[in-house]
Amino acid sequence: VPHSTALNNAPTAGALLAILRDERIATRATLGEKAELSRLALNQRLALLLDADLVCAAGQEPSTGGRPPIQFQFNPLAGFLIGADLGISVARIAITDLVGRVLAYAEERRLIEDGPEVTLPWVARQAESLLSGLDKKLDNVWGVGVGVPGPVEFEAGRVVSAPFMSGWDHYPIRLWFEDRFGCPAVIDKDANIMALGEHRSHWRRFDHILYVKAGTGVGCGVIAMGDLHRGANGSAGDIGHIQHRGDGEPLCRCGKTGCVEAVAGGWALVRDLRAQGIQVSTAEDVVRLAGGHDRVALQAIRRAGRVLGEVLADVVNFFNPSVVIVGGTIGQAEGELLAGIRETVYQRSLTLATKNLLVVPSALGLRAGVIGAAQLVSEAILAPGAIDQRLAAMQGRSLQESTIPMASAGS
Amino acid sequence: VPHSTALNNAPTAGALLAILRDERIATRATLGEKAELSRLALNQRLALLLDADLVCAAGQEPSTGGRPPIQFQFNPLAGFLIGADLGISVARIAITDLVGRVLAYAEERRLIEDGPEVTLPWVARQAESLLSGLDKKLDNVWGVGVGVPGPVEFEAGRVVSAPFMSGWDHYPIRLWFEDRFGCPAVIDKDANIMALGEHRSHWRRFDHILYVKAGTGVGCGVIAMGDLHRGANGSAGDIGHIQHRGDGEPLCRCGKTGCVEAVAGGWALVRDLRAQGIQVSTAEDVVRLAGGHDRVALQAIRRAGRVLGEVLADVVNFFNPSVVIVGGTIGQAEGELLAGIRETVYQRSLTLATKNLLVVPSALGLRAGVIGAAQLVSEAILAPGAIDQRLAAMQGRSLQESTIPMASAGS
Repeated sequence: VPHSTALNNAPTAGALLAILRDERIATRATLGEKAELSRLALNQRLALLLDADLVCAAGQEPSTGGRPPIQFQFNPLAGFLIGADLGISVARIAITDLVGRVLAYAEERRLIEDGPEVTLPWVARQAESLLSGLDKKLDNVWGVGVGVPGPVEFEAGRVVSAPFMSGWDHYPIRLWFEDRFGCPAVIDKDANIMALGEHRSHWRRFDHILYVKAGTGVGCGVIAMGDLHRGANGSAGDIGHIQHRGDGEPLCRCGKTGCVEAVAGGWALVRDLRAQGIQVSTAEDVVRLAGGHDRVALQAIRRAGRVLGEVLADVVNFFNPSVVIVGGTIGQAEGELLAGIRETVYQRSLTLATKNLLVVPSALGLRAGVIGAAQLVSEAILAPGAIDQRLAAMQGRSLQESTIPMASAGS
Repeated sequence: VPHSTALNNAPTAGALLAILRDERIATRATLGEKAELSRLALNQRLALLLDADLVCAAGQEPSTGGRPPIQFQFNPLAGFLIGADLGISVARIAITDLVGRVLAYAEERRLIEDGPEVTLPWVARQAESLLSGLDKKLDNVWGVGVGVPGPVEFEAGRVVSAPFMSGWDHYPIRLWFEDRFGCPAVIDKDANIMALGEHRSHWRRFDHILYVKAGTGVGCGVIAMGDLHRGANGSAGDIGHIQHRGDGEPLCRCGKTGCVEAVAGGWALVRDLRAQGIQVSTAEDVVRLAGGHDRVALQAIRRAGRVLGEVLADVVNFFNPSVVIVGGTIGQAEGELLAGIRETVYQRSLTLATKNLLVVPSALGLRAGVIGAAQLVSEAILAPGAIDQRLAAMQGRSLQESTIPMASAGS
């Protein structure tokens, strides 16, 4: 007879949900077998998940004579997530289901420089407005994921030393959202959430991928062994301020000279086009011109691609990824930018490192950020331990609700 | 009453050994509690481990009145490992205990170009000779770890596309050793085993580290989240053939021009010193000259440090490690090389990425390779599943031994 504590190793309700998500659809019999749970233990856990609406009945399995067995599946509409991507000059926000599928979306030209005390309340108001459009309320929100254009202390959930986010340094973004929405929030660097969004949505079968954000600034999100690599200080992927050794060495907005971003960043393209008398003010303008086949804009973007290609060639030698995904505002001018990058990477990287390397455009486009932000918080709240905590809290609440009248009567 | 299959989740003997190794020393009571095992289940597993000599009694705990409880500990001398580091021009080999502590060591000037059919039998003969010096035999060897100076298909255990290992391409190194020694073997790139050796011996509390091998060639081993990052094709860490953009662009032995190695590799230093009329033929000669304060050698090494520093500055921006360890033959000229590297990395990398960055000399020196190779195979053979397999095989053998006379009699 096994010692009673051996039961501690048996799957909890949260772990059972993870097994069901792997299976997609399963009967009681399949679940009991996969989870190695007794009928009784399985039913107890399933009841909790059904109560919380996290599991629902799916279509019936073809009958083999008797009563057909009920099929169960995970219900991603049991709760909702907020995914926000706060860029330098555009803010994007989405309401998604529990696995990051977009149900409602909004974007607006907003400057990150306005600071947290203007920006965060705007996010909250937008979220509430999108939720009400879906006929949902604040307490339907289970998690908030937010991307920002600068390095983040991930555990603390706040920005550190971001050169273009004045007013944000050490502001407690995570706590602000947790306080406002009463649910877990996670904050990460924009390139990281975009990398996660692309990986989880399209490239999950590859362990090592890079996402290059070619926007106003230049950044990179790194997936190693299937997970985000943030580095020792959360600054991993910062390829925008690697020194590019070309002819001219333009001044970067970081104060150094010759940074990759000072040649290939959206703001640098705007600077270069203006110097040639072309009226542009944002990276979006440059991409629009290129879309209209403007020769100068196309050349500028192609050159940016080559410069990005040079730094990526080094990074590919060092990191040996399977896929390099190119996104961001400038990344929307796929053809020219990718051509420049591919040309340089395939020429300069080691043959072994490029043998199976894919260099591809972003599949999620400019929504990579909001989707990735939602997926980041999704993974936190759907972790078995987090689900178990939620179920325990719900049981506590319903217990409390049923005892409140008696307690009130007694006081 | 728990379902019987719940027992499948209870720790096996292999898992119990892992718990004991974490605890270092433990009584039956502590082990039972940590493993959540019944007295009976614990004793069954402990008996298997004691039989295999993997666990032995340690000193007694101070008596609390009655009979003092026996204390148990892992016995790393239950078996032995072979660690080999086959460099371009020097081969090193060690016999270690099960956790990679060196018990016997030998090195010899040998050229990797001699090919596998000359080199591998030499490794085997050296190993047997070192073992007999320890009064041990071949069947005391539980695992073989081997490092080679080129990229490796890790699962297949063979070299791929290594430019300076003619004759080794696709040679089944792992199978050769497994066949010769009748135990598991693992093969990896030299910089990887060195990185692992340094990490496991001295830097285990840091998740992200780089080991730079500054030898005849230049390579790098990458530890991400505490484990080796080999990349999609096993070529991760290849910083030697990143293009250095300096004034001259010397021809590299890989056929390209301007590689880091063509300026900062040991062979390039030999070339440069010879061009100045100094008689040197190996990287070791250059380091020896520098040790005797030869001005030209010191300047050449310092310059190599600056060039390594430039590529490492980019890599530090991208990867954001906690520690950069500098080793290899040229790395033995610590002072000059480190000064050159530090000067450039701290100047060129982002402030956030270098805030807590340590750039340090190798603690294991030229033995990092053999120690790391042994530790690599150690982790494979001490994994709970591998221990359980070994114990099952031993039980099978002792069962077979006791039945052989009867079977022979019957035939």
